[in-house]
Amino acid sequence: MGPARRPVSRMAAWQPMSPFLRACRGLPVPYTPVWFMRQAGRSLPEYRKLRAGIAMLDACRDPALVCEITLQPVRRLGVDAAILFSDIVVPVAAAGVDLDIVPGTGPVVAHPVRTMRDVDAIHHLEPDAVGFVAEAVRLLRAELGDTPLIGFAGAPFTLASYLVEGGPSRHHERTKALMYGEPEVWHALCGRLALVTLEFLRVQVDAGVAAVQLFDSWAGALSAADYRRFVLPHSATVLGGLEETGDVPRIHFGVGTGELLAAMADAGADVIGVDWRTPLDVAAARVDHRLPVQGNLDPCALFAPWEMVAAEVRRVLAEGTSAPAHIFNLGHGVLPETDPDVLRRVVDLVHQVPSAGVPRQQPGRHP
Amino acid sequence: MGPARRPVSRMAAWQPMSPFLRACRGLPVPYTPVWFMRQAGRSLPEYRKLRAGIAMLDACRDPALVCEITLQPVRRLGVDAAILFSDIVVPVAAAGVDLDIVPGTGPVVAHPVRTMRDVDAIHHLEPDAVGFVAEAVRLLRAELGDTPLIGFAGAPFTLASYLVEGGPSRHHERTKALMYGEPEVWHALCGRLALVTLEFLRVQVDAGVAAVQLFDSWAGALSAADYRRFVLPHSATVLGGLEETGDVPRIHFGVGTGELLAAMADAGADVIGVDWRTPLDVAAARVDHRLPVQGNLDPCALFAPWEMVAAEVRRVLAEGTSAPAHIFNLGHGVLPETDPDVLRRVVDLVHQVPSAGVPRQQPGRHP
Repeated sequence: MGPARRPVSRMAAWQPMSPFLRACRGLPVPYTPVWFMRQAGRSLPEYRKLRAGIAMLDACRDPALVCEITLQPVRRLGVDAAILFSDIVVPVAAAGVDLDIVPGTGPVVAHPVRTMRDVDAIHHLEPDAVGFVAEAVRLLRAELGDTPLIGFAGAPFTLASYLVEGGPSRHHERTKALMYGEPEVWHALCGRLALVTLEFLRVQVDAGVAAVQLFDSWAGALSAADYRRFVLPHSATVLGGLEETGDVPRIHFGVGTGELLAAMADAGADVIGVDWRTPLDVAAARVDHRLPVQGNLDPCALFAPWEMVAAEVRRVLAEGTSAPAHIFNLGHGVLPETDPDVLRRVVDLVHQVPSAGVPRQQPGRHP
Repeated sequence: MGPARRPVSRMAAWQPMSPFLRACRGLPVPYTPVWFMRQAGRSLPEYRKLRAGIAMLDACRDPALVCEITLQPVRRLGVDAAILFSDIVVPVAAAGVDLDIVPGTGPVVAHPVRTMRDVDAIHHLEPDAVGFVAEAVRLLRAELGDTPLIGFAGAPFTLASYLVEGGPSRHHERTKALMYGEPEVWHALCGRLALVTLEFLRVQVDAGVAAVQLFDSWAGALSAADYRRFVLPHSATVLGGLEETGDVPRIHFGVGTGELLAAMADAGADVIGVDWRTPLDVAAARVDHRLPVQGNLDPCALFAPWEMVAAEVRRVLAEGTSAPAHIFNLGHGVLPETDPDVLRRVVDLVHQVPSAGVPRQQPGRHP
């Protein structure tokens, strides 16, 4: 599917860099590239079949399975990028934290991290401890051809929240209490998690991912002042460290981060991910139109009748033209009940809408 | 406590309207008034003692108990306003919806509302069906003296989400699916809920509340475009209807509504409530400095050491001076683990900080 549907001549004119990677760099594209957060997952029947009876962490540690799961949405949906199937707690588990992913709940940490001693128990991440990820990336590069593979990791704040709370949390109150009350422990924890995360992403870059996304899923729980003081320096360690590692675009995303977009850009992103609450033109303005944007269809909009889905897709595409470039995505992960056929129709529609071909902000830029 | 701590001469100069009500109207105040969402609740030991063995809905329907619970934080914390102890599902239950409030879960609806027939089963709210609320308000007026009593209700979207999902929801996907997919049913449901809500607030106003707050707790899950199309007209029915009922200030609040503040103001508010994610000066600018603001200390900030709490309180107060007036509050409800002594220190500090006495935006306005 995917590339085969596009006219060969048009593709050729934009080679060798894929539309996704061109958009990551703010370059003009023949059509708006599109992928979906959690595109590899429970909305696909072939995924549910493959995962039956296999625990999440076991699946993440099986390179052949990771490869197959990562490829499924590329085949079925024709998206412009694959994203490595994994979980944000994988590197933390590999760095010595005793945790499991409990179906219906999420990550559950055996001994929540609350003290400096707890922090010290988190090791340096040895690349060999996540060798299965490097192997999966190598397998995927051979299978994916011209389709770029996105690597990913959870950002220090989001990882810290899981570790401090002991699992998913609504208000993150223990996390914030530690942050405010014991800033030395907090910064030691996030400093360590930043190095784990950076190493985890380096492994992926070295193995051949074409881009990375840093997920700070829960950063939207913070005010901008707290984000800049307690979180930004550690995310900057990751994103800045990557800049030295290689020429790989860095997407930075969190949910409900409308007020944090400028700060998240300052942490060192090449592309800013936006949830559905903030229109893309507003988001583009908040980062001074400096960065390409990624997003931001409401995942729940996919449950609407097709005509409304199509209207929403067109609205998102139109708002995206305010930025130097736009990568179409949802504003959060694909929900499990989503109909994959609707996802595929969205991909086709995004590819067909011509208006986003040459971004308004940079009409003179050409390859 | 409360008024007794303030110099009588200064109080007298600002009578008869309390600082809270003056701030609601954008008038200068001798000090910034302060109250806390969920100030009557689980953080107070005297509340936990009183509620032991009594189900939530039973408590809400007992006027003497409602009166006592509502008074507890006024006595202990010295806040500038009381808020009626109740629950947002109380009027819906009184309008014929079979539901219960399950400890640790929240409202659970026996038969989720998904069809026009389900909508038709929601009755008009007869004032007599919430006579216990009117009685509680009358008892409270006699007890509260000069301290204003705030009435409240849940807004149509938030109520609809509980009814459609059958209980609390993270993504509100069924609610949005109904909204997008069956707009006639959606608008019929919200239209009916708006009338129930308006009647519930009229009962409170007729019984003597001095102000009301419309809680659209979950509206922050919507994009501004969806809010304006699917929600605003119904919230406007409530807020506009109240304007005709009497001269009672209307506070409009939701969580995570940074992108919706202008739309929520357009729905017909006198005061706009702001969660902690949006600084008050930013919020004030988003409503063109037309409205007083209420908020917005992060409830989790109360778990910090006092010096940091105090710094945050001062920051919020400073940012609040951008608006015509500022009512200090948290950016969401008091969390159960909160230390009431910290709440009381916050009240005292807010009352002591002099800078908010005469708002910057309207230096020439005097009574």
